[in-house]
Amino acid sequence: MTPLFECVPNFSEGRRPEVIEAIVSPFRSRPGVHLLDFRADADHNRLVVSVAGEAEALQEALLGAARAAITSIDLRTHRGAHPRIGAVDVIPFVPLRGADMGDAVRLARGFAGRYARETSVPVYLYEAAALRPERRNLETVRKGQFEALQKETETPERAPDVGGPRLHPSAGATAIGARPFLVAFNINLESSDLALARSIARTIRASSGGLPHVKAVGVALQERGLVQVSVNCTDYRVTGLHQVLERVREEAAKCGVRVLETEIYGLVPAAALLSEAARSLQVAGFDEAQVLDLRLLDVMSGIAEVGGRG
Amino acid sequence: MTPLFECVPNFSEGRRPEVIEAIVSPFRSRPGVHLLDFRADADHNRLVVSVAGEAEALQEALLGAARAAITSIDLRTHRGAHPRIGAVDVIPFVPLRGADMGDAVRLARGFAGRYARETSVPVYLYEAAALRPERRNLETVRKGQFEALQKETETPERAPDVGGPRLHPSAGATAIGARPFLVAFNINLESSDLALARSIARTIRASSGGLPHVKAVGVALQERGLVQVSVNCTDYRVTGLHQVLERVREEAAKCGVRVLETEIYGLVPAAALLSEAARSLQVAGFDEAQVLDLRLLDVMSGIAEVGGRG
Repeated sequence: MTPLFECVPNFSEGRRPEVIEAIVSPFRSRPGVHLLDFRADADHNRLVVSVAGEAEALQEALLGAARAAITSIDLRTHRGAHPRIGAVDVIPFVPLRGADMGDAVRLARGFAGRYARETSVPVYLYEAAALRPERRNLETVRKGQFEALQKETETPERAPDVGGPRLHPSAGATAIGARPFLVAFNINLESSDLALARSIARTIRASSGGLPHVKAVGVALQERGLVQVSVNCTDYRVTGLHQVLERVREEAAKCGVRVLETEIYGLVPAAALLSEAARSLQVAGFDEAQVLDLRLLDVMSGIAEVGGRG
Repeated sequence: MTPLFECVPNFSEGRRPEVIEAIVSPFRSRPGVHLLDFRADADHNRLVVSVAGEAEALQEALLGAARAAITSIDLRTHRGAHPRIGAVDVIPFVPLRGADMGDAVRLARGFAGRYARETSVPVYLYEAAALRPERRNLETVRKGQFEALQKETETPERAPDVGGPRLHPSAGATAIGARPFLVAFNINLESSDLALARSIARTIRASSGGLPHVKAVGVALQERGLVQVSVNCTDYRVTGLHQVLERVREEAAKCGVRVLETEIYGLVPAAALLSEAARSLQVAGFDEAQVLDLRLLDVMSGIAEVGGRG
């Protein structure tokens, strides 16, 4: 029984290949840690790493990557399009296989103490790991970015949860959190009417009373002459991709517009798609443990044991 | 790059727990071999093991299990409802991750030589690994079972492909093959009309000109007062579960009958369901490598390497 977590640390470096490699390197070939993906973006000047693993090994690798980032990145001179408060900007833990959100919250809070102690970078706890309700929202934590936060940490509203009270002079602060897997799901309409896409996005998003755990904006895909409802499903177990698509289909149909196609951007958990397949194929009593590849994954990682039926 | 195979060896023992455990035991805790499931059936007097692993480790484990079966099972006194020709009756290899059917055929044929040499049990090669076209069909190989085959191996039509010419006196022969993953997919109708279920089964099955790689029979679920079209999808990449369900829906609708629900019996590869989810969600350009759990599996088993995008 070794629960697996995903972690998606974001670092404020998207340009210097040697720094990127120094940050990614601790995630390679450490037993119990599995590097899934990494993407560096020069405009955002940001590196997003996807890694999965066991709690202990993951924390060791994260500390190694953080040390590399803190040594090489100076927020006082850093420029990029993406908002950030630190050299290591955010570290969200996502429960994967054999783990639930409670496990991820405990991991995030436990790691926050160790991280602040070993790096001298103060920590804000966010989303499910937040200690203050308003910090569930990452945007609240990141408000004004490094530049404003530097001057405001002495006020109680903006004091770090762990470490501090002052930010690390060059590396700022880090937001550490726990959250469900986030699925980026874009729905392209057979239309060039941006107002329609925006109106549908407004209708379906949680913040305006639409579907829970759905964020959405309407955007134009100018090269293709189409518009898109760009959706983040922040908890696909509550609102599945199918429900989002159905609502968009309905709203578009009111204006005689059809959905052309959808896109899944980046990684998606198997469960988000398997539940849709089971629904669409009318499968009664479907059990994820029947899926060969997932069973193999759980057996390989020691999550499942095979008793057999005699 | 370590290709993974599934193997589903069937042994002619479904009653004695100590023999079952002796056969299953070599598949436990051997590095590179992952026991997924096993089911013993007393009426069939048969044990079906599902195991996944790397070619070399899998072969070692199979030889260990075969030795246990050959020592303990005597076909001369064996009785059971399921047709069989040997103590180790069939050993099909299924390409899993990082492997294709050609790899599985090479593995099956290579293993056949080693198996016959080390166990003195002759081998018939079947399905994709068959050396003679008529032996692609396992039923041809198994015709008349152990009792008839014993007397017929001297005829060219029934001579083993490897080893022999006589069967092993107590352990008979073994059919070793390569095939795609077989998905058992049952479709329950809102009807008690057995003739309808049988007629639909006839319409959709490959042998009567229906859907390729589909086997189907109509059966009554007497306790529930329903009928079922019981389907084996022998190559879901050619005919997917959705296509089978659609045809059954259409045929049933001609008689005003609806599909109540479906069932997937036993294991199913993620790909068989993911393709359906992608279709149903209209996902353009969907790539299995985007599925977090599969990516993790491939990274853990060394099939995928993460280059990243900088």
